[in-house]
Amino acid sequence: MGKRFGAVEAGGTKFVCGVGARPDDLRARIEFPTTSPAETIARVVEFFTEQAKRESLAAIGIASFGPIDVNPRSPHFGYITTSPKPGWQNVDLAGPIRRALDLPVAFDTDVNAAALAELCWGAARGLDTFVYVTVGTGIGGGGVVSGRLMHGALHPEMGHMRIPHDRQADPFAGACPFHGDCWEGLAAGSAIEARWGGRGQRLPENHQAWELEAHYLALGLTNLICTLSPQRIILGGGVMKQTALFPLVRRKTLELLNRYIQVTEIIDHIDEYIVPALLGDNAGVLGGIALALEMERATNEAAWGKHS
Amino acid sequence: MGKRFGAVEAGGTKFVCGVGARPDDLRARIEFPTTSPAETIARVVEFFTEQAKRESLAAIGIASFGPIDVNPRSPHFGYITTSPKPGWQNVDLAGPIRRALDLPVAFDTDVNAAALAELCWGAARGLDTFVYVTVGTGIGGGGVVSGRLMHGALHPEMGHMRIPHDRQADPFAGACPFHGDCWEGLAAGSAIEARWGGRGQRLPENHQAWELEAHYLALGLTNLICTLSPQRIILGGGVMKQTALFPLVRRKTLELLNRYIQVTEIIDHIDEYIVPALLGDNAGVLGGIALALEMERATNEAAWGKHS
Repeated sequence: MGKRFGAVEAGGTKFVCGVGARPDDLRARIEFPTTSPAETIARVVEFFTEQAKRESLAAIGIASFGPIDVNPRSPHFGYITTSPKPGWQNVDLAGPIRRALDLPVAFDTDVNAAALAELCWGAARGLDTFVYVTVGTGIGGGGVVSGRLMHGALHPEMGHMRIPHDRQADPFAGACPFHGDCWEGLAAGSAIEARWGGRGQRLPENHQAWELEAHYLALGLTNLICTLSPQRIILGGGVMKQTALFPLVRRKTLELLNRYIQVTEIIDHIDEYIVPALLGDNAGVLGGIALALEMERATNEAAWGKHS
Repeated sequence: MGKRFGAVEAGGTKFVCGVGARPDDLRARIEFPTTSPAETIARVVEFFTEQAKRESLAAIGIASFGPIDVNPRSPHFGYITTSPKPGWQNVDLAGPIRRALDLPVAFDTDVNAAALAELCWGAARGLDTFVYVTVGTGIGGGGVVSGRLMHGALHPEMGHMRIPHDRQADPFAGACPFHGDCWEGLAAGSAIEARWGGRGQRLPENHQAWELEAHYLALGLTNLICTLSPQRIILGGGVMKQTALFPLVRRKTLELLNRYIQVTEIIDHIDEYIVPALLGDNAGVLGGIALALEMERATNEAAWGKHS
């Protein structure tokens, strides 16, 4: 049998909850729109209360939109902090779920959780340093460095790095309310929509939008490569469903690096270096399960007196 | 007494060797210019052979210019790989020293070594995720993430990230032979010299060069903050001897972040967040000693059967 875990994919648009232990053992999935914090959290608790009557859960993992407080020593651990989503500033998300269900709760960003799921079951198996970037309405990035999820003072906010923007070639001012033409402001789905006046999904594969999009994505990936030296970069999110982007992004990244970084994974195997996420629409829930599993592993190691 | 370690600061212009165990125990320092690999390495070996007659050394740490191969499983571990320095491509630096002296040798980039020294004795004490950036002839960056030196597929090459470049405000094309106007190409000492026609040290504190320099440095630091979420950023190198840069860089970084990342270390304590390196001219040799100490610690842990 093995242990079962609960998972919450907490998104700004919808929440998804599920129960399982791995990709081929995922059950009892439920989705509902993100409304007020009180109502949304109540639905999460209700779902897992019902599930727990059928089989006991070992822990719950929450993969959340952000920014969030992931520091276990902080008084606001488990909170969504400065989210631009109305009503969701300074909201304790993990606390009420932990208390209502009396279960250990793991909590991290949606992108770190997805990265961890890709490490467990997807495109990052066997690696110890890699990046996961989702290009959807916004751009978010997470990852694993030397075997550990990226945290630091807060957590990565990769979408808000600054990249070159040639305003003659692309007069669009950028869509980020905080930074204008940061990476997300130039290359996220909402930027594509605002620049070209239509949702990215509807633009044909040969539309000039994709050449420009690949250019911006390659600039951001180049910066991630120079900063983190990842062993692989995994791209997910709605915009990357335009699979014609992958060869363009790979080519432009190689051009930008200009053979300065002589890593065979990059120079000789770019097709296996910049790759699509493998877990698809289940990435969020699997991310939650991966977080719960990782918490268990760390707790067991600590119990055995090993240094982490 | 305690153990003594040998340290090599291998730079493109000069090599520095020393013996010691910490900042207040640093002896027998020698400097010589970097000539051919054979001659330079012979001088290193000669120095430590003499030292070892007086007191036994436990290990040697080499803090090297790069790019280098830091993967212990690679057949070229310990090599300088694609350095633009004539004669220094594909040079085995660590191997001959290890064999001649029959000592364990730790090997990493000069910036990772300096970061580790700042962690042991300097501006990064007590942190587990921070970045060290040196702004000298070039720009290099290293650091520690979750307590471990940054590696990955290779090692960071932070100086080569791309940042916005307003060619109307600054028509200088950039000085990087690989990327033109990458971070290093716009903001390293050689770029300052080429743009303003004089060495940075000679430009007065109120010269417009510093405002522009601070702007570029802040752009790079903003990207490092968004990517790594460091708990602190330490700046060293010759250009940062112009201490008037620090308040400018802090202010511009805050402006660029625009309160999006609500981390109290940044928003409320920027003076302690972006700080000068503390170890000064001994950073290189102390970096080598820190690398040797860290190797010892890891070896001892492994010997005790702990998981790393």
